[in-house]
Amino acid sequence: MNEAMNQFESLSAAFSDYLLENRFLKEPLNLYEPIDYILQIGGKRVRPVLVLMAARLFDNHYQKALPAALAVEVFHNFTLVHDDIMDDAPIRRGQPAVHTKYNLNTGILSGDVMLILVYKLLMQIDKGTALPEILRVFNDTAILVCEGQQYDMDFEKRSDVSIPEYITMIEYKTAVLMAVALKIGAIIGGANNEDAQNLYEFGRLAGIAFQLQDDLLDTYGNPEKFGKKPGGDIIQNKKTFLTLTALERANETDQKELLRLLNSETKNASEKIKAVINIYDKYEVKNAAKERMLLYMQHAYDALEAVNKESALKMPLKKLAESLIQREV
Amino acid sequence: MNEAMNQFESLSAAFSDYLLENRFLKEPLNLYEPIDYILQIGGKRVRPVLVLMAARLFDNHYQKALPAALAVEVFHNFTLVHDDIMDDAPIRRGQPAVHTKYNLNTGILSGDVMLILVYKLLMQIDKGTALPEILRVFNDTAILVCEGQQYDMDFEKRSDVSIPEYITMIEYKTAVLMAVALKIGAIIGGANNEDAQNLYEFGRLAGIAFQLQDDLLDTYGNPEKFGKKPGGDIIQNKKTFLTLTALERANETDQKELLRLLNSETKNASEKIKAVINIYDKYEVKNAAKERMLLYMQHAYDALEAVNKESALKMPLKKLAESLIQREV
Repeated sequence: MNEAMNQFESLSAAFSDYLLENRFLKEPLNLYEPIDYILQIGGKRVRPVLVLMAARLFDNHYQKALPAALAVEVFHNFTLVHDDIMDDAPIRRGQPAVHTKYNLNTGILSGDVMLILVYKLLMQIDKGTALPEILRVFNDTAILVCEGQQYDMDFEKRSDVSIPEYITMIEYKTAVLMAVALKIGAIIGGANNEDAQNLYEFGRLAGIAFQLQDDLLDTYGNPEKFGKKPGGDIIQNKKTFLTLTALERANETDQKELLRLLNSETKNASEKIKAVINIYDKYEVKNAAKERMLLYMQHAYDALEAVNKESALKMPLKKLAESLIQREV
Repeated sequence: MNEAMNQFESLSAAFSDYLLENRFLKEPLNLYEPIDYILQIGGKRVRPVLVLMAARLFDNHYQKALPAALAVEVFHNFTLVHDDIMDDAPIRRGQPAVHTKYNLNTGILSGDVMLILVYKLLMQIDKGTALPEILRVFNDTAILVCEGQQYDMDFEKRSDVSIPEYITMIEYKTAVLMAVALKIGAIIGGANNEDAQNLYEFGRLAGIAFQLQDDLLDTYGNPEKFGKKPGGDIIQNKKTFLTLTALERANETDQKELLRLLNSETKNASEKIKAVINIYDKYEVKNAAKERMLLYMQHAYDALEAVNKESALKMPLKKLAESLIQREV
C-alpha cells in the first residue's frame, strides 16, 4: 500500500517537473501569463497522474506519456477557466479565478488558446499509428465535457431533473475526462483495445463515484477533513444526487417544502441547511447516496480487475481511486 | 473571367449543400442550436471556398476537401462568436450576435464546442499520412489567430503601436486563416510542399491586403457599395493603418490633435469623422494605405504565380482575391 501511494507521489512529482520545464510563458504575455497562473496554482494533478499510471502499467518508460498528461491537465484547466466564468465563481483553489485576477476577455481568450495547446501537446505523442485513435477518443470526450456543462446549466432552470439524467450529467462533466486520461495513457503504453477500454470504464465509473462522494461530502463532510464548510450546495440551491433522491422519495408536503427551499434566496444559511438536511434525513438520502457511490466503486473495481495485469501492478490505480472517494489525496 | 467567377459560385453552392447536410443540431439543443444559428446566417463562405479551390487546383475530386472546408468555416465562426463577446459587439451580419440572441454563457460554451468540432471535422480528412501535417499547420495558425485577437485588444490601450506591429496583428487575426485554408486544401489535393507553401503565402499576403482595404473602405468607402456608413472605425477610436500612418507622418500639433480625437468620447459623429479625415488628407494617408495594399496584392500574385500550375487554372483564385479587395463578392 505504501508503495502504491509512493507511485502517485513519484508520478505527480515527475509531472510537476515536466510542467515546470514546459511553461507557457511567451508573448503576448496578456494571453499566456494567465495560462501559466492557472496551471501553477495547482490542484492534485490527479488526471495527469492517471495518464502516467495507465501508461506505466503497460510500459516502464512512462515518460513518453508526459505530453499527453500535460494535454489532459491543460484541458482540465481550460474547463475550469471557462466554467468559473459561466458559474460566476470568483475563487479557484483558494486563489482568484482567471477572470477575477485578470478580466472576462482574458478568461475567454486564454481559455481558447489552452484548448488549442491541448491539441498541440497531443500531436507530440510519439505514437504514429495510434495518434488518430487518441485524437478521436479525446475529441469525443471533450465534446461530452462541454455537453455535461450545458446540462448542468440547463438543470439549474428545471425542477423535473431525473436521477438518471443527473448521473449522465456528472458522467459527462467529470467522469469521462478521468476515463480518457486512463485510456490515452494505456494506448501510449501499448495496451490492447480491451485493456484500454476496461481502464476507460474504471475511470468513468470511479469518476461518477467521486462526484457522488463530492455531493455527500458537501453536505455531510467533516469540515476539518473536507477543507470547506458543509452546506455550500444547499446554499447555492444546487440540485445534487441528495436533492433529487429526496424529491423522488418525499411525500407531497415535503416535496413542496424542499422545492420551496431550493427556489428561495438564502437568508439564514444555517437554518436553511438544517431544514434541507431534516428532509434528507427523513428519507434516508445519505445512505442512498453512499450505497450508490459504493456500487459505482464496485463496478469500477470490477473493470480494473478485468484488465489483464497482475493485481499488484494495478494496486496504485486502485489506491488512487480509493483515496479519491476518501479524499485523503 | 466569367468561368473563374463561376467556379466561386459553384464551389460556394457545393459548400452550402454540404453544410445543410451536416448541421450540428442535436441534444443538448441549448448548446448546439446557437452553432447552427451562426453557421446558417452565413457570410460569403470565402474561407471554405479557398479550401475547395486549392484542392481543386491539384485534384478534380475536390469533394474530399469538404470536411476540411467545413472545419475552416466552423473555426472562423468560433472566432466570431468569441470575438463578438470580447469586442462587446451585439450585431453580426445584420443579425443578433450569439451572446445577444442567447446569453454570455451560451456564447462561451457553444464557441468552445465549435473549436472541438473543428478537430472532429479535420479527423474526417481521408488523407492518412498527411493528417499530422494538416493538424500541425492548423494548430499553429489557430494559435496565431488567438494571439492576433490579443494584440488587437492590447493595442486599444497603447498609443505607441508601430505600423509593423499593426501589420503583424492583422496578419495573425485575419490573414493566416485564409492562408491555412489554401494550404490545407492544397495538401488534400496532393500538392507538393512548395506549391502548398506558395498558396499559403498567396493567402497570407492577400489577407493582409484585404484587411488594409477594409481599413480604407471603412473611412473612404462608398456606402452604397460597401454596405455600411463610413467612419465606423473613427467613431470607435480604432487604431487602423490610416491612423497609425497619420500619427507617424504628422507634425507635433496634428499628432496631438489626432491623439486627442482618438481618446475622446464621440459627441458629434460627423464632425469627428471630418476632423480626423482632415488630418488624414493633410498627410496623404489614403494614398499610403492604397499603395501598401496594392504592394501586398502584388506580392500575393507573385506567390500565386510561383505555384506550378497553368495560369488559367489559377485564375479563379486570382479573381477571388481581386474581388475581395474590390468587395464585390
